[in-house]
Amino acid sequence: MVYLDYNATTPLDPEVVEVITETLTTAWGNPSSSHEAGVKAKHVIATARQQVARMVGAKPSDIIFTSGGTEGNNWILQTALQHFCRGSSKIGLSMGDWNDAKSARNRPHFITSNIEHDSIKLVLEHFLSTGLADVTFIQARPLTGCVHVQDVIDAIGPSTIMVTVMLANNETGVIQPVSEICQRIKSLKRKKGETERILLHTDAAQAIGKIPVDVQELGVDYLTIVGHKFYGPRIGAVFAHNPGEDAPLYPLLFGGGQERNFRSGTENTPMIAGLGKAAELVSSNLDKYQTHMATVRDYLEESLQQTFPDSVSLNGKSPDSQRLPNTCNVSFLGTSLKGHEILSRAVSVQASVGAACHAGDRPSHILLSLGIPETVAWRALRISVGRETTKEDIDLAVQELKSVLDS
Amino acid sequence: MVYLDYNATTPLDPEVVEVITETLTTAWGNPSSSHEAGVKAKHVIATARQQVARMVGAKPSDIIFTSGGTEGNNWILQTALQHFCRGSSKIGLSMGDWNDAKSARNRPHFITSNIEHDSIKLVLEHFLSTGLADVTFIQARPLTGCVHVQDVIDAIGPSTIMVTVMLANNETGVIQPVSEICQRIKSLKRKKGETERILLHTDAAQAIGKIPVDVQELGVDYLTIVGHKFYGPRIGAVFAHNPGEDAPLYPLLFGGGQERNFRSGTENTPMIAGLGKAAELVSSNLDKYQTHMATVRDYLEESLQQTFPDSVSLNGKSPDSQRLPNTCNVSFLGTSLKGHEILSRAVSVQASVGAACHAGDRPSHILLSLGIPETVAWRALRISVGRETTKEDIDLAVQELKSVLDS
Repeated sequence: MVYLDYNATTPLDPEVVEVITETLTTAWGNPSSSHEAGVKAKHVIATARQQVARMVGAKPSDIIFTSGGTEGNNWILQTALQHFCRGSSKIGLSMGDWNDAKSARNRPHFITSNIEHDSIKLVLEHFLSTGLADVTFIQARPLTGCVHVQDVIDAIGPSTIMVTVMLANNETGVIQPVSEICQRIKSLKRKKGETERILLHTDAAQAIGKIPVDVQELGVDYLTIVGHKFYGPRIGAVFAHNPGEDAPLYPLLFGGGQERNFRSGTENTPMIAGLGKAAELVSSNLDKYQTHMATVRDYLEESLQQTFPDSVSLNGKSPDSQRLPNTCNVSFLGTSLKGHEILSRAVSVQASVGAACHAGDRPSHILLSLGIPETVAWRALRISVGRETTKEDIDLAVQELKSVLDS
Repeated sequence: MVYLDYNATTPLDPEVVEVITETLTTAWGNPSSSHEAGVKAKHVIATARQQVARMVGAKPSDIIFTSGGTEGNNWILQTALQHFCRGSSKIGLSMGDWNDAKSARNRPHFITSNIEHDSIKLVLEHFLSTGLADVTFIQARPLTGCVHVQDVIDAIGPSTIMVTVMLANNETGVIQPVSEICQRIKSLKRKKGETERILLHTDAAQAIGKIPVDVQELGVDYLTIVGHKFYGPRIGAVFAHNPGEDAPLYPLLFGGGQERNFRSGTENTPMIAGLGKAAELVSSNLDKYQTHMATVRDYLEESLQQTFPDSVSLNGKSPDSQRLPNTCNVSFLGTSLKGHEILSRAVSVQASVGAACHAGDRPSHILLSLGIPETVAWRALRISVGRETTKEDIDLAVQELKSVLDS
């Protein structure tokens, strides 16, 4: 079996497994307890927070642990909504008055792309359908798979409260111009009657562990971190710039006041320790990981082009866009088989037709949104390599695909 | 060191650790992936769901995994709020229209007790302060520490949408009459213009693993399950009776559609597997656990009464209430030391002055709410025993407390 679905999830690094396993038995105390068992757990969490912060160039106090990327993305969007509603109190609406947003002249306005993960897309569609907010979905450009900065700027209106664009797309691997978007938005002068400030968020789920991610270089107010995409456990974290001071942050979950009251719930100490270790590995080895993945992915793409001459299309690959080093999105043009049919026959190749959350019953909306014809989108596979993928793995996979497509 | 703070958190059972550790390396695939790595993870989750369901007498399809008790409690309260607002659409309000609840003649009304965990209390206080709902906090009765069923019934109004009363209090261990409350409420005939149905929830965080918990006997629509209180990991689950059909259930987190769209987010497979194992252990051994804990706790209380004659008060212990078998809440009357001062001197005793989430800077609001005088509440310790606590541990702890209090 060759696993080539590292964008769906990664195995845990053995060092991460070791840390989690150890923490399960040595730091099981409640981090809020004041006795030794609690203090020990608290210390483990503090260390992990430093490790995660270092990975993204943040201060430890800017990191809040979450149950995963979905919670992180939902939370930050809800925070922006609530920030708008609280801000409205200055013009006569009561604090925390969610639905006053609806009746206010200025309904909060979000800008995002049409290639976001469902944990952004569906939240904003929910806001839209329930009248809580207006949303502009910026179309990523065909061929490049990339959001244009000017399109984002053009979409800004008086009530724009947040811009959220993912750092790298999960299906094509195309890296989005988040840093440029943030720079341009920060240089805008907001007029009276407009939102004073536009909050900036990026979902860095797929980017971390594959390319350098630095919150200061990006210039974001918020960033979503997802452990299981970089050989860590199934939890995550949110970066918020001086949360509660520079970046507004309102709890989604109320309770025992953990995470400085931003995220209640007894901390998942072993998983947090594992996230810290996974972050430390990224901080120390990113160059090596990146080079290795790029080498193997490029070898894969060359091999595909040689094996299926003139009958593969590398979706999202363009001289005008940059991609993650590990992601190949390829459509096989010389077959009547759809992507999921290819995969069901190529039994030793573990890849996908798109985001793991979606079944193969329709072509990827991401590919369609890039202007890729439906027949081509139906024939797409997402092949994503990892730290331990070898050229031999690639040879095996390409050989198996060839035997399926030739038969 | 003697750990006597099992209500704050428990260590993981070695069998649970083993399952988690194994799953970390053998079932790391994304459960949504259709290839082998994914299918394996999916299977692990299905097994755990059966184990958790069996523990509380539910069907597997009634169990939805969460990141913990705080998420579970927040979610169920939000669901009730949303259910009310959606119901209001029948009388001319638009669907999902949260704040219309405010302007509607009938604002949704919650009934709870004044001894709930902060993950219930603070959510409802937030609803109250932002005008989203009315809330009645039923006073638990002095001495018994118990909510009276009739008090709950008397509080019911036309717009009552949910009653949530914890199954057992975390500080006193007093078991609440949840089954009777549910029975009485179900027998009520609702009139036209009233909410058709009152949703019933209990937070079973402290009860599970200590006393039998059966959702059918209780008659609840929802129940919150918290792994780390019964030797399981730091995640949880929610029971909802035929979710989306009998018991309304609206997502708190939008995203990839995991957990049949009720709770998005890539599943924390290793922790879920561990929760399943912890549940299986409870199903198989509850009698044994219960008997052992009761024996040791009773030994502790006798020992305290003998060691400090006429100068200990066992808070919540009453012939008219039942308590968890493991919990002892004791105030030391013959000292000027406050609870946290006693603990800071009795260095080998790891206990607490109340919920772990609270520091010792004020007396427990739970004890105060039971009418216990402030001076007595200040001098309280919560001592909670576990499956492996021995009489020798108790002897050591009592001896140490004696030497602190005699000096």
